[in-house]
Amino acid sequence: MSRAAARRDALRVVAGERGLDAVLVTNLLNVRYLTGFTGSNGALLVSTSGADLFGTDGRYTTQAGTQVPDVGLLVDRATVSALAREAVRRGVGRLGYESHDLTVDGLAALEKVLADAGTAPELASVRRAVEAQRAVKDDDEIESLRRACAVADQALAELAAEGALRPGRTELQVGRELDARMLTLGAESVSFETIVATGASSAIPHHRPDATELRDGDFLKLDFGATVDGYHSDMTRTVVLGHAADWQREIYELVAAAQAAGRAALAVGADVVAVDAAARQVIADAGHGEHFSHGLGHGVGLEIHEAPVIGPLGAGRLAAGMAVTVEPGVYLPGHGGVRIEDTLIVTDDAPELLTLTSKELLVL
Amino acid sequence: MSRAAARRDALRVVAGERGLDAVLVTNLLNVRYLTGFTGSNGALLVSTSGADLFGTDGRYTTQAGTQVPDVGLLVDRATVSALAREAVRRGVGRLGYESHDLTVDGLAALEKVLADAGTAPELASVRRAVEAQRAVKDDDEIESLRRACAVADQALAELAAEGALRPGRTELQVGRELDARMLTLGAESVSFETIVATGASSAIPHHRPDATELRDGDFLKLDFGATVDGYHSDMTRTVVLGHAADWQREIYELVAAAQAAGRAALAVGADVVAVDAAARQVIADAGHGEHFSHGLGHGVGLEIHEAPVIGPLGAGRLAAGMAVTVEPGVYLPGHGGVRIEDTLIVTDDAPELLTLTSKELLVL
Repeated sequence: MSRAAARRDALRVVAGERGLDAVLVTNLLNVRYLTGFTGSNGALLVSTSGADLFGTDGRYTTQAGTQVPDVGLLVDRATVSALAREAVRRGVGRLGYESHDLTVDGLAALEKVLADAGTAPELASVRRAVEAQRAVKDDDEIESLRRACAVADQALAELAAEGALRPGRTELQVGRELDARMLTLGAESVSFETIVATGASSAIPHHRPDATELRDGDFLKLDFGATVDGYHSDMTRTVVLGHAADWQREIYELVAAAQAAGRAALAVGADVVAVDAAARQVIADAGHGEHFSHGLGHGVGLEIHEAPVIGPLGAGRLAAGMAVTVEPGVYLPGHGGVRIEDTLIVTDDAPELLTLTSKELLVL
Repeated sequence: MSRAAARRDALRVVAGERGLDAVLVTNLLNVRYLTGFTGSNGALLVSTSGADLFGTDGRYTTQAGTQVPDVGLLVDRATVSALAREAVRRGVGRLGYESHDLTVDGLAALEKVLADAGTAPELASVRRAVEAQRAVKDDDEIESLRRACAVADQALAELAAEGALRPGRTELQVGRELDARMLTLGAESVSFETIVATGASSAIPHHRPDATELRDGDFLKLDFGATVDGYHSDMTRTVVLGHAADWQREIYELVAAAQAAGRAALAVGADVVAVDAAARQVIADAGHGEHFSHGLGHGVGLEIHEAPVIGPLGAGRLAAGMAVTVEPGVYLPGHGGVRIEDTLIVTDDAPELLTLTSKELLVL
């Protein structure tokens, strides 16, 4: 049985427990997760009775045959409507749908199609049932994440070795080279808009690279990732150019200690709020609590941000197979900031570190 | 007045005509269009009485100050809810919202916030009012599109000059080099997943590049684009490797003639169905009607596909300033296919061609 088939079976169980006869999956990433389909238009009808149906349009007939060989195919320009009519034809009584994905207009169109097609099923939201499944990665997904992280590691290593991170170059130049290198090394795309922040801008958590030149004595903060098989890596490293001042070494070591504490707290069954607190306490104890203004981490997979949220506002516990980031930071406004971030897999033992670039303070 | 301010004023007029006191814009690209904000979380309240309000979260306070200096700023984790409460506080009686963007869950949350905040305004969809504005580009947008198209032109020219498009290389290699080159030349990102299709795969309109090697005598179809300032270029060229057979020259010339007919039909006031027909007729007259299986073109801008649709199922007329593609194709299943695509601006005179790569049959 394919991975995708096993995932559909797991959703089938959830649907059955909730009294649904079928689920109409419209979120494209959820469709990809449940089928393997990577095109830009597709939807999936998962039936508790077993006969699933994948819908897409004529551009993707060939691709669907290759990527989704084990699910019935329905080709139609109006994919969701066609699957909805099929649900009515099958006599589905209670149809689950994704209320966090379907738009208001989409629901109105769906209701109209169902009403026009005959005895309309009752609609019930399945909420984020597929996203909850996606939080725990299987071996194939972990392997894709490993490769995505390896591409990012290697791209940074090559740029550092070639002297691309040197005074006089601009944030924009560095960012573009990092992006281009990741693609050359096999990334399908970059995971998100690469952050390159130097000098005072390193104190801005989400700085967009601009024409500012790298200068001796400045921090250089790089937050970037590669996408492989649809899976995103996420890593931040902060280096110093030329010579590290005492205050720079001090906050670097502080963030590194907090990050180690956060990684150490990643255990099966750990409360996500407690994991955040483990790192946050280290920073607060050093008097920098107010300078760590965001959560500790997040799940990562087919999306760059997905479940679980590891932060003061998160909820729930870690499970084996979750892929998460640990990324504390200390930002001194107008001065400079440090963030150190890894992507890791929660396991029954110590977490598996996927981003392998050294976290020793690098002075370039 | 900034471009963004002029765009907000135009929306204000539409809102007033529809009896709305304010519009809550949630679509992130529409927010970008109306404010200049490029972050990943933002929403906008446009008031017919004039005091607009931009909402984002704390990560983007600095960026909002730089990119959106001329609109009041509201910083809140729950951006849409906070703007909705502000609308109630202002006594908005009728609030427009984007029903094609807001999810079912999003609408439920919005309705709850409004009810909890006091006298809830009546909600009314503005439909795609901002998308309709976006279909006609202003000078700044056209300049960004020009630059995006120039990057794609140059990337292809460099790869061809370096001999990167030669037998023995794989589709995947060519695609990654094209992507990396566009980034190096200043693209923020690629416009979409680059299509590299050779041999029989060139007959698949949306083929994903794979490990197939380029071979002498095969077609090589490249459909790709660069993004600059958020604006997407879109271009397809089909070349032949080594030596062009008669059947290849024949369908190439046919597609080129159809593409020229489509470009010639781009005029202010032209019906989009007639524009499509102008190119389609050329292909049908040659007996290949069934081998041109998609629409002629689409609008392009902040999205790779946006209004207008130029095809048998489109509706409406062209206006000066619209940015559109013209991309007929002839696909012979199992054999090979040709598509030729440009991005152009509709003007009162002849359309302005933005993708300048030659359309003569190139034999590499």
